[in-house]
Amino acid sequence: MSSILKSRVRYAPYLKKLRTPEQCVELFSPGQYLGWSGFTGVGAPKVIPTALADHVEKNNLQGKYAFNLFVGASAGPEESRWAENSMILSRSPHQVGKPIAKAINDGRTKFFDKHLSMFPQDLTYGYYTREKSNDLLDYTIIEATAITEDGSIIPGPAVGATPEMVSVSDKIIIEVNTNTPSFEGIHDIDMPVNPPFRQPYPYTRVDQKSGLQSIPVDPSKVVAIVESTQRDKVPPNTPSDAMSQQIAQHLVEFFEHEVKMGRMPENLHPLQSGIGNIANAVVEGLASSNFKNLNVWTEVLQDSFLDFFESGSLDYATATSIRLTEAGFEKFYENWDTYTKKLCLRSQVVSNSPEIIRRLGTIAMNTPVEVDIYAHANSTNVMGSRMLNGLGGSADFLRNAKLSVMHTPSARPSKTDPTGVSCIVPFASHIDQTEHDLDVVVTEQGLADLRGLSPKERAKVLINKAAHPDYRDQLNDYYERAVFYATKAKCLHEPHILRDAFKMHLNLQDNGTMKLSSWDQKF
Amino acid sequence: MSSILKSRVRYAPYLKKLRTPEQCVELFSPGQYLGWSGFTGVGAPKVIPTALADHVEKNNLQGKYAFNLFVGASAGPEESRWAENSMILSRSPHQVGKPIAKAINDGRTKFFDKHLSMFPQDLTYGYYTREKSNDLLDYTIIEATAITEDGSIIPGPAVGATPEMVSVSDKIIIEVNTNTPSFEGIHDIDMPVNPPFRQPYPYTRVDQKSGLQSIPVDPSKVVAIVESTQRDKVPPNTPSDAMSQQIAQHLVEFFEHEVKMGRMPENLHPLQSGIGNIANAVVEGLASSNFKNLNVWTEVLQDSFLDFFESGSLDYATATSIRLTEAGFEKFYENWDTYTKKLCLRSQVVSNSPEIIRRLGTIAMNTPVEVDIYAHANSTNVMGSRMLNGLGGSADFLRNAKLSVMHTPSARPSKTDPTGVSCIVPFASHIDQTEHDLDVVVTEQGLADLRGLSPKERAKVLINKAAHPDYRDQLNDYYERAVFYATKAKCLHEPHILRDAFKMHLNLQDNGTMKLSSWDQKF
Repeated sequence: MSSILKSRVRYAPYLKKLRTPEQCVELFSPGQYLGWSGFTGVGAPKVIPTALADHVEKNNLQGKYAFNLFVGASAGPEESRWAENSMILSRSPHQVGKPIAKAINDGRTKFFDKHLSMFPQDLTYGYYTREKSNDLLDYTIIEATAITEDGSIIPGPAVGATPEMVSVSDKIIIEVNTNTPSFEGIHDIDMPVNPPFRQPYPYTRVDQKSGLQSIPVDPSKVVAIVESTQRDKVPPNTPSDAMSQQIAQHLVEFFEHEVKMGRMPENLHPLQSGIGNIANAVVEGLASSNFKNLNVWTEVLQDSFLDFFESGSLDYATATSIRLTEAGFEKFYENWDTYTKKLCLRSQVVSNSPEIIRRLGTIAMNTPVEVDIYAHANSTNVMGSRMLNGLGGSADFLRNAKLSVMHTPSARPSKTDPTGVSCIVPFASHIDQTEHDLDVVVTEQGLADLRGLSPKERAKVLINKAAHPDYRDQLNDYYERAVFYATKAKCLHEPHILRDAFKMHLNLQDNGTMKLSSWDQKF
Repeated sequence: MSSILKSRVRYAPYLKKLRTPEQCVELFSPGQYLGWSGFTGVGAPKVIPTALADHVEKNNLQGKYAFNLFVGASAGPEESRWAENSMILSRSPHQVGKPIAKAINDGRTKFFDKHLSMFPQDLTYGYYTREKSNDLLDYTIIEATAITEDGSIIPGPAVGATPEMVSVSDKIIIEVNTNTPSFEGIHDIDMPVNPPFRQPYPYTRVDQKSGLQSIPVDPSKVVAIVESTQRDKVPPNTPSDAMSQQIAQHLVEFFEHEVKMGRMPENLHPLQSGIGNIANAVVEGLASSNFKNLNVWTEVLQDSFLDFFESGSLDYATATSIRLTEAGFEKFYENWDTYTKKLCLRSQVVSNSPEIIRRLGTIAMNTPVEVDIYAHANSTNVMGSRMLNGLGGSADFLRNAKLSVMHTPSARPSKTDPTGVSCIVPFASHIDQTEHDLDVVVTEQGLADLRGLSPKERAKVLINKAAHPDYRDQLNDYYERAVFYATKAKCLHEPHILRDAFKMHLNLQDNGTMKLSSWDQKF
């Protein structure tokens, strides 16, 4: 037993339950329901999932040794290895990464996507363990960075759904990570209270704390603890480029205009920002703008936020996870005292809470797969069927924000055409966010302010401000043909020609580009 | 001046501003932005809209004398008359009724649909008056049933968005209705407070009151008061029938099962129920069930709730409007003291608040136009384009409820086929509620419990439990062909064949039924 483990585990009885990861394998049997800590690739258990994957590979158990797996959002490379070994029977509420997407799209893993604010509560309602006699998760495996005197768990860089999982888990296994500093003091954790006893969340400011610093557990449920020295491995961030910087510039100008018109305070409202190069460019754009005293209420903080703090423009940030690269974490640990005064990590039901997002007047910004001319957006499924990434918290934020923004390139390359895929389409091939939820759609071409517009007005603004020039005529053609048809049929609210609605997608499938020879083309 | 008017208006200075409805006409000019009180056809102004409609008809001003009109939800027959006379340039956030739907579908009225909880706050943000130099509504016309000593307004059977409208209105006109009793004491009104100053709503029980009994106004903004003796005119309710009673029975059995499994308390959670014969049948079914001490947190109360109270099963109900028929109101007034102990009317931002709906664990039940096999639902637009009814609060409730239910007949008649329209389709022709938002879909055929199911599992349950037998084979065919295709293309998350996705709709358009000769049929 390492001395650092002894110092991190301040509740002695747990040390009697110490096992190696390999000694934990016997605890598991296929078909069990497992919860993992973690959110967006950090804070998930590592050494036990690795031992289980080793077990499967050594004994050629691929497809015969699989689990029902719940993680607050995505886990790290260990989840990918499980997916490659067909160890995931079913999975919810979110995933990111090629191996898990492949397992879902191959039909090896059953996946369902749920709003990240709702998944933990529905888990505690027993909705996801309906088929089980005891209605509980069999195990929750939690990465801790320390254990308090009463056996409570101090998580690492993610709170996620761990509080809820613990509350509905039959048994608990703790991986104590001794290769990262203890994260004690950075968390503000609300434990689940279900209706009819649920109370208002008190938060009216991003820096307000009223929760716990650790997750209480019943020590008798803890069946094993394991030492882990495996750090989180986050892939490098996609840097911003000319396209994403152009989008950021449109957005910063728009925010300046909103302040000028009195619709936003000078330091804006708390910001929510997603993952990816556009999100990074927006953070860079805000950091180098004239905006000061900004705040962030979001679900995940990334490396770009460290620079955002350094710029002096960001006062406080809160999320449910801090997902940094190795270099990012080094910087974070070196400046621990500075950063921990300026940020806190909450349960994902709180970070993504409609109640708080709406109360604070959050500005939400996310990237879709595609948006249609009436402002329905696809966040998840390419061509309607193929899972790309999960829904995540996009709908928690976009539905409830004071200002709901989707940012996207106007077009993406297909295999044969540099602008073969238009991100503005007649009818989204999958809909996760509806026309009732989006205020602004912005591409490198321009910003479409859709607030208060009827569907037909929206279509014109969206096509002419935000669509790629290669597609403007084609989209305007669709729209005008639809209006012509709908004028005769007297259905002019949101004119569509269902016969043609997916022709751009079908042409991409058949001919490698969304550019049609004509709307009369047959499929 | 009638003595009853004098007694109702307890703030004397208003009486100096008394006008006839006809004398108000000169205050208006076309193109103005107007707010009306009212919600779901009750509590809206009547005599001034009538005077304005008379003015248009007398002077043949149809299409030349029109306004931008906001009402909390739908208004009464006066709105229909405005629509018939092309007096509504633009309209939000909700409408019901043939004349207004016709004006929208003819392209005479620009309409946009917004969640009823969000519309009032977005109005106060200035999002809907962006084109106006003063950023305000020109007039809000409010039906009051009394005026307090300080000039505050006591509404009638609807609170709706009046508090927000008053807060962003340049001038206010009050219609004092002296032909209905004063509704004083029945309201609990929260005035708008916007970010960053917004506080938690304190409500943790349906019967909790912490708001005001009247709407404060700045008396200097009140430019006229008018006496009205026009009562609300609500069309008779659609009675339940064998189909809707069958749906109600499935639901009651399901609730009993949920209680047995420990997922619901014995008196359930607060109920939200929509409008229509299925909603009425569900209320009847609950009233005659073994459930006791039920509560209601909803947006509109109808006649069926009076019987629900009488059954002894309902303890308390709260909404933003009470929409009764004339006979219903008579009964309500006769038993005023009994009913007002058991119900209260709130602002629509409160009745439809995601914060409170989620906190209370509400059970939400609404009727869609159609649901697709993966559980996306269309609440508004027939065949994707034609506005039927607005979105209303369906998405406020379905997104945030503990249990989200859509109830629908499995099929409806077309002109030539008694089951020509299947309410379960491969791909909804318009999507207002996503797959991430629905727990249960129930038809007279059966109940599909979708909680925790992946899309492919959902499709099988939905088709085989809820679809009409006339369509089961056809829908299973679509699903199996899609799975076959997606197996090859490796996109098995939510298998679709976009080429075929709308064929049932196209066949209805072309051949009067959704029954296809084959999935290879061309359109």
